[in-house]
Amino acid sequence: MPAESPVVADLTEQDLLDRIFPHLPVGSRTLVPPGDDAAVVTAPDGRFVVTCDVLVEDVHFRRRWSTGQDVGRRAAMQNLADVVAMGARPVALVVGLVTPGATPVSWVEGLARGLGDACRPLDVGVVGGDLSSGPVVMVSITAHGDLEGRAAVRRSGARAGDVVAYAGRCGWSAAGLALLTAERPDVDPGLVADHRSPEPVLAAGPDAARAGATAMMDVSDGLLRDGRRLARASGVTLDLDDVRVAFAADARRLAAAADALGADVAEWLLTGGEDHGLLATFPAGVPLPEPFRRIGVVSTRSADLVRVGGEPPRAAGSGWDHFRDRGQPRR
Amino acid sequence: MPAESPVVADLTEQDLLDRIFPHLPVGSRTLVPPGDDAAVVTAPDGRFVVTCDVLVEDVHFRRRWSTGQDVGRRAAMQNLADVVAMGARPVALVVGLVTPGATPVSWVEGLARGLGDACRPLDVGVVGGDLSSGPVVMVSITAHGDLEGRAAVRRSGARAGDVVAYAGRCGWSAAGLALLTAERPDVDPGLVADHRSPEPVLAAGPDAARAGATAMMDVSDGLLRDGRRLARASGVTLDLDDVRVAFAADARRLAAAADALGADVAEWLLTGGEDHGLLATFPAGVPLPEPFRRIGVVSTRSADLVRVGGEPPRAAGSGWDHFRDRGQPRR
Repeated sequence: MPAESPVVADLTEQDLLDRIFPHLPVGSRTLVPPGDDAAVVTAPDGRFVVTCDVLVEDVHFRRRWSTGQDVGRRAAMQNLADVVAMGARPVALVVGLVTPGATPVSWVEGLARGLGDACRPLDVGVVGGDLSSGPVVMVSITAHGDLEGRAAVRRSGARAGDVVAYAGRCGWSAAGLALLTAERPDVDPGLVADHRSPEPVLAAGPDAARAGATAMMDVSDGLLRDGRRLARASGVTLDLDDVRVAFAADARRLAAAADALGADVAEWLLTGGEDHGLLATFPAGVPLPEPFRRIGVVSTRSADLVRVGGEPPRAAGSGWDHFRDRGQPRR
Repeated sequence: MPAESPVVADLTEQDLLDRIFPHLPVGSRTLVPPGDDAAVVTAPDGRFVVTCDVLVEDVHFRRRWSTGQDVGRRAAMQNLADVVAMGARPVALVVGLVTPGATPVSWVEGLARGLGDACRPLDVGVVGGDLSSGPVVMVSITAHGDLEGRAAVRRSGARAGDVVAYAGRCGWSAAGLALLTAERPDVDPGLVADHRSPEPVLAAGPDAARAGATAMMDVSDGLLRDGRRLARASGVTLDLDDVRVAFAADARRLAAAADALGADVAEWLLTGGEDHGLLATFPAGVPLPEPFRRIGVVSTRSADLVRVGGEPPRAAGSGWDHFRDRGQPRR
């Protein structure tokens, strides 16, 4: 075995697991921890929320742009964002990890550290998983949540007259990817960091549910595309305000990057995915829980599922499609 | 779009989902079905069992040897086997599917049909998933179960004096793989079919729990390797009977294939993985639930974690290691 920089193929499966496990929290809700055929997790209200998301090397990330820790943290965050988008508190993850034998062990340890970084502060346990060799790195995470007695907040509950609100960053990840692609990360390293490892506002999901949100979803494919999904599920139209006004703080933050690249801030705001902000609707007059801000209103269903500033949106792209938009990572 | 034999890249993600969903049962325990950010599943006793297993093309299966339906069925079965090995009733799956754009849509539909075939008779819902492109097919499944008020049957509960028992086929999958590798599938097509898509006796898991099993696990890496894991977790030694006697019916079934290939039946019985039989221990005197049969006794811990016919096992291999045993599919 080489003295330094060992790769995955230098270790047995058990050796690799022994390197990974110390980085992973068990979680206080875990009754039977990893190491058996399956784990057992509490579900105090008699239900559990479950969602699955896969990250594939050279589709969703590049190893030359992202560390193992970035990828681990991001893989966890995007799954946790789906859990909180139902109004649930995240409680447990399982992780399927495929990696080439030539992957440095330190990269895999970094990935475990990134998972742990995302999960530990929330008392989310990493309760199981599976390891396999394969031609590229693939991280498949299934995340679980507890509705704490509340109804799930679905996409289908928005009603005409509701307020449309958004929590979290918008367009940052898309701008960060654009800077990386143009080899200009120096223009705004903060946006690049947000691309590598987004910072969704996870507490906002359960807070929105407690405040009476009528519909909610995680924005992973862009505001337009995901907004249309929510509108379609609810049988309504979303009337968004002019995005440069509704997302004024984000627009200011994105201005320098847009100037440097000759890009359009509004396009990033409307079609940039994977900031994992929360799009929600609330009955009119309900005080919006922090950090939700109003970005529009719900109207009765009309020809367009989403209007922006009263018009059909003019943005060129409408979001990401896995099997169509090929040739570069999703972000 | 081509008129016949479309491939995944010819379809949008939504089109592909529309082809997949009709094959997948929702399950009667599913409160919020697929289509939202996450699903919601009932957990009536306030706990859920969760396990994750990944199948990777050219590591765990070859597309020239297995249909999509075989792979889907097998992926579901091996996860369901982990759930029942805790003594739980399987209730729900989520599926992360990675596939090259050049994969025929019919192959992916077959995979969905195979998942459905495995899940529908058990009222297991396929409650969510994720699709991505990637260089090879990878199927990552997370399965969930309901302990129905019982304690989980762990690997660590075997005690000296207990009976060691096994339910299901043993060595069939290994023999089937050996026949395929030698290009002699004609010798015993039944074994080859079992390799492509095993038939674990899933009802035996909850039955064993109800009968008072002290320890249990799914045998996926071979009787020796997995037996050692159970012995180590329980702090005991497993004293197995001579496997040609304990597994007399399996040995008879494997004889023709072994003769044809010059292989050793005992080796298949001891090290062949992925029949997903259940290895369990029961207090002496407890009537074994069908189809468990006695294969040995539990002894106080001695130098060897597993003995066979009173001796340390002589079999060459000790089971599969993902990052070591390379160059051919696991089975």
